[in-house]
Amino acid sequence: MGKVHVRDNAAKEKKTEFRLVRVKDTWKRKLGKKVNKNKVDCVSAAKIFETSTVKDTTWTVISPITFTYKVTETRGLLDPNSDTLLLGHITDPQHLEEIKALNKPLKRFVVVDQEVYKIYGAKITEYLEFHNVLYKILALPTTEENKSMEVALTILEEVNNFCLDRRTEPIIAIGGGVCLDIVGLAASLYRRRTPYIRVPTTLLSYIDASVGAKTGVNFANCKNKLGTYIPPTAAFLDLSFIQTLPRRHICNGVAEMLKMALMKHRGLFELLDKHGRMLLETKFQDAGSIYGQSSFQAASRATRIAITTMLEELAPNLWEDDLNRLVDFGHLISPALEMKVLPSLLHGEAVNIDMSYMVYVAQECGLLSEDEKQRIIRCMVGLELPVWHEEVTMELIQKSLQDRLKHSGGLVRMPLPVGLGQAEIFNTTSYEILHRAHEKWCGELSMSSHSSCDP
Amino acid sequence: MGKVHVRDNAAKEKKTEFRLVRVKDTWKRKLGKKVNKNKVDCVSAAKIFETSTVKDTTWTVISPITFTYKVTETRGLLDPNSDTLLLGHITDPQHLEEIKALNKPLKRFVVVDQEVYKIYGAKITEYLEFHNVLYKILALPTTEENKSMEVALTILEEVNNFCLDRRTEPIIAIGGGVCLDIVGLAASLYRRRTPYIRVPTTLLSYIDASVGAKTGVNFANCKNKLGTYIPPTAAFLDLSFIQTLPRRHICNGVAEMLKMALMKHRGLFELLDKHGRMLLETKFQDAGSIYGQSSFQAASRATRIAITTMLEELAPNLWEDDLNRLVDFGHLISPALEMKVLPSLLHGEAVNIDMSYMVYVAQECGLLSEDEKQRIIRCMVGLELPVWHEEVTMELIQKSLQDRLKHSGGLVRMPLPVGLGQAEIFNTTSYEILHRAHEKWCGELSMSSHSSCDP
Ligand SMILES: NC(=O)c1ccc[n+]([C@@H]2O[C@H](COP(=O)([O-])OP(=O)(O)OC[C@H]3O[C@@H](n4cnc5c(N)ncnc54)[C@H](O)[C@@H]3O)[C@@H](O)[C@H]2O)c1
Ligand SMILES: NC(=O)c1ccc[n+]([C@@H]2O[C@H](COP(=O)([O-])OP(=O)(O)OC[C@H]3O[C@@H](n4cnc5c(N)ncnc54)[C@H](O)[C@@H]3O)[C@@H](O)[C@H]2O)c1
Ligand SMILES: [Zn+2]
Ligand SMILES: [Zn+2]
Repeated sequence: MGKVHVRDNAAKEKKTEFRLVRVKDTWKRKLGKKVNKNKVDCVSAAKIFETSTVKDTTWTVISPITFTYKVTETRGLLDPNSDTLLLGHITDPQHLEEIKALNKPLKRFVVVDQEVYKIYGAKITEYLEFHNVLYKILALPTTEENKSMEVALTILEEVNNFCLDRRTEPIIAIGGGVCLDIVGLAASLYRRRTPYIRVPTTLLSYIDASVGAKTGVNFANCKNKLGTYIPPTAAFLDLSFIQTLPRRHICNGVAEMLKMALMKHRGLFELLDKHGRMLLETKFQDAGSIYGQSSFQAASRATRIAITTMLEELAPNLWEDDLNRLVDFGHLISPALEMKVLPSLLHGEAVNIDMSYMVYVAQECGLLSEDEKQRIIRCMVGLELPVWHEEVTMELIQKSLQDRLKHSGGLVRMPLPVGLGQAEIFNTTSYEILHRAHEKWCGELSMSSHSSCDP
Repeated sequence: MGKVHVRDNAAKEKKTEFRLVRVKDTWKRKLGKKVNKNKVDCVSAAKIFETSTVKDTTWTVISPITFTYKVTETRGLLDPNSDTLLLGHITDPQHLEEIKALNKPLKRFVVVDQEVYKIYGAKITEYLEFHNVLYKILALPTTEENKSMEVALTILEEVNNFCLDRRTEPIIAIGGGVCLDIVGLAASLYRRRTPYIRVPTTLLSYIDASVGAKTGVNFANCKNKLGTYIPPTAAFLDLSFIQTLPRRHICNGVAEMLKMALMKHRGLFELLDKHGRMLLETKFQDAGSIYGQSSFQAASRATRIAITTMLEELAPNLWEDDLNRLVDFGHLISPALEMKVLPSLLHGEAVNIDMSYMVYVAQECGLLSEDEKQRIIRCMVGLELPVWHEEVTMELIQKSLQDRLKHSGGLVRMPLPVGLGQAEIFNTTSYEILHRAHEKWCGELSMSSHSSCDP
C-alpha cells in the first residue's frame, strides 16, 4: 500500500503520494511507489501528492518536461545539395525515411532579416525552389529598435494565414540575434508552441543566441523584458554567412566568445589573444586569404570551444532557475548601458565594457594580477572592442547591482575571473572596491578607448 | 572512459555522450555515464550528445525542466484570518518561517475581472489592507471578446510600473477562465516567467482552467491561438465565489464536470444525474438551503472528483505532447462553433453540444446502448445544458475533424464514451457513421433543445 503519513500536529495533515499509470487511453492515480508494469501501458514520470487538513485539500503536481534540441555546425547550408535546412531537425531515422518516401512537397514559413534578405534572398529562394518547397518568405527589418511584441504579432498573423502544420512544419528564422529572438518568441506562442529553426547570420548569434533556449523582445524600454525559454528544434550554423558581416559586428560577436574564454577556457583566450586580428581580417572564412587554411582552423576551433563551453553552462540550467551563472559575466551593467545609449553601442560592445570594468574589480579584489589584467585589456583592444564608456558611472553601476540583487534572490552573484580562463561567483563586493576599481578604470582607460568606442 | 560509437557507414559518424557536472561555479562536460560524486558539487540531469561527420558537428541537448505547482481547495480565502492567498504558494516550511519572521510588508499585484471586482472588490481590498500588503489592484473587463494580446500587454505595462520582484512576489489573478488565461499568459512572458496565482471565481475555471498549465488569448478570430504552458505556482479554489455566479454560468461549469464523468468516472456521472438540480439550486454552497449539509457534501464530492480526474489526465501530459487526450472530449467541434456564434454560447455550452453529438456517434458505433445514450442526454437536459445547435452542420463537423487531423499528426484521435464513465480514443470513424449520427441527433434533439439553447 501507499505512503500515508499522518503528522500529529494541530493541523492533522495527511499526505499521500500518487504515481500516474496509463491503462489503454486512461490515466489513473496509483497509491505508492511500486507499480506492476505488466498491468499498465505506461508509467509517467509525473507525480501527484495529496495533502489534507480539516479545512483544505492540496494537490501538488510534479511534472517534468524534457526539452531536446540540436545545434549543428555545418557548411553549405544554402547549397542545393544539402537538405539540412529542411530535414536536419528530424532525429528519428525512420521518420526521416518516411518523409523522403512520401515525396510530398514540404511547406516552410521563413522569416529573414531584411538586410540579410538583400544579400542572401536570391540564394534562399533558389534553395527552396530547388527543393520544391511550398514556402513563404517574410523579410522584416528586425532591428534592436523594433525588437517588439508588435513585430512578433505581425509575424504571427502571417504564420496564421500560411496555415502551417504546427507539428511537422517548423518556422525558419534566418538573421542575427534580433531576428532569431523575435521569431523564437512568436513560435513559442503560436498554438502554445510551434517548432522553429534558428539560422544565425551574425557571429554573435552564431555562438550565443543560437545555442540556448531564450527568446524575447524589448518592452517598456527594457531589454528582452518579455520572452520565453523555448529552445529551437534545431539551430543550423554556417560560418559562410559571416563573410558579409561588417567588421564591427564581427568584433561584437568576438566579445561574447571572449566572455566564455575569460570564464572557462584559457585555451580560447590564448587563441583569441594570438589569432584575434587574423580572425577579424579573414572574417572567420577559409578561402582567399593570405593566411590560408590556418585561419579557418583557428576560426573553427574558436567557434567550437565557444559553443561547447556555452552549452555546458546552458544545458543544466535551460530555464535559468539557478541564479549562479558564469554566462552572466559582462551582463550585469551592460543591459542598462545598452538601453541608455541605444543604438550607439552594440550588445557585445556593451558586454565588453562591462567585462573590462569587472576585470578591474577582479584585480582590485586580488583575483587577477596586474599583469593578467593588462593582458586581458590589451587583448580586448586588439579585438577592436571598446573597453570604457563615460556612461558607466558609479551611479549606473550601483543601480545595476541593486537591480541585480532584487532579481537574484537578494544576492548579487557576480561572476569574476580568478586567473585567466577560470571564474567564480562572488556575493560580497564592497562599495570601496567597486569605487576604487572604477577610479582606476577611468584613469587608465578613458583616454585610450576613444578610438574604438566610435567606430 | 566514455561511450564512443564509430558507425562504419559512409558518413563515418562518431557519437559521444556527455554528462554535466558542476565543480564550484563551473559546469563541465564529462565523458560517459559514471561520475565520481565525491569530486563534483552537482550532477545535472541534462545531457549533451556530440555527433561528428566529416562535414558537420551536432550537439544534441537533452534538458529536463520540472514544473511543480499546487492546487488547493480551501474555504474563507478572503477571510482576514487566512493567509493562504498571500503565503499558501510557499512550499518550504523554513522559507515560510523566514518570511513571517522578516515581518516586512508583502507586495502583490492583483488583476481582477471587473464584474468580480464589483462584487468582491471591497472584500479583496479589506483583506490586503488587513495584511498590510503593498498592493495594486487592476480591475479589467476580461471578457471573451477582449481576450487578446492587447489586454495582456496592458497588464504587463502595469506590472512593469509596479516594479515587483519576479521571484518572490507572484501576480494574483482573480476571476473566471478568461481573466486567469490572460494573466497567466502575461505572467509567463514577463521576464521570461514570473510566478502567478490563480483564484477562480466561476465553476468552469474552478474545475478546469485552474488545474492545468495552459494560458492563452484569442487571435485572428481563433480561440486561444496564442499562449503558453506555464502552470501557476498555486491555484486557490474557494467555492464561496460561486454563490454570486449566474445560474447559466454554473451550468456552464457543470458541463466540464460532466465531461470528466463521461470519460472516466461513473460515480461522478451518477452524482450529477441524481443531484445535479440540487447543485444548481444551491449553487454549490452549504448554508441556507432546504437541502442542508447534504447539498454541500454533494458539491464537495463533485468538485473533488472533477479536479482529481482532471489532474490525472493533465499531470502526465502537462505540455500536451501526447495527442491522445480524453480531456479533448467535447473539444473537437466546439471551438469552431464557439467562435462562430460568439457571444451567444458559453464555452461549456458549446462543449456540451459537441459531447451530445459525440454521444450519438458513440451509440451509432455500438459503444453506448440506446438506453445509455438517452440517459446521458436526459442528464444534460436536466443540467439545463443545450444538447443541439443548428450551426453544428455536417460541414462544420467535417471541417473541424479535418482541422483536427492536420494538427494531430494525421490521426483524428476522437475520445468516445464506451459505456458510462469509461472512454477510449478512436481514429477510424466513417463519414457514414458521422452522418447517420448527425441525422438522428437532429431528428431527436432539434426540437427539444430550444428552451435550453437560449436561456
Ligand atoms: N537569445 C539569446 O540567447 C541571445 C543571446 C545573445 C544575444 N541575443 C540578442 O541578440 C541581439 C543582438 O544580435 P546581433 O548582434 O546578431 O544583432 P542583429 O540581429 O541586430 O544583427 C546585426 C546587424 O547585422 C545585419 N546582418 C545580419 N547578418 C548579416 C550578414 N550575414 N551579413 C551582413 N549583415 C548582416 C543585420 O541586418 C543587423 O543590421 C540582441 O537583441 C540580444 O539581446 C540573444
Ligand atoms: N486554461 C485552461 O485550461 C482553460 C480551461 C477551460 C476554459 N478556459 C477558458 O476559460 C474561458 C471561460 O471561462 P469562464 O466560463 O470562467 O468565463 P469568464 O471568465 O468569461 O466568466 C464568466 C462571466 O462570469 C462573471 N463572473 C466571474 N466570476 C463571477 C462571480 N463569482 N460572480 C458573478 N459573476 C462572475 C464574469 O465577469 C463573466 O462575465 C474561456 O476563454 C476558455 O477558453 C481555459
Ligand atoms: Zn549577451
Ligand atoms: Zn473546455
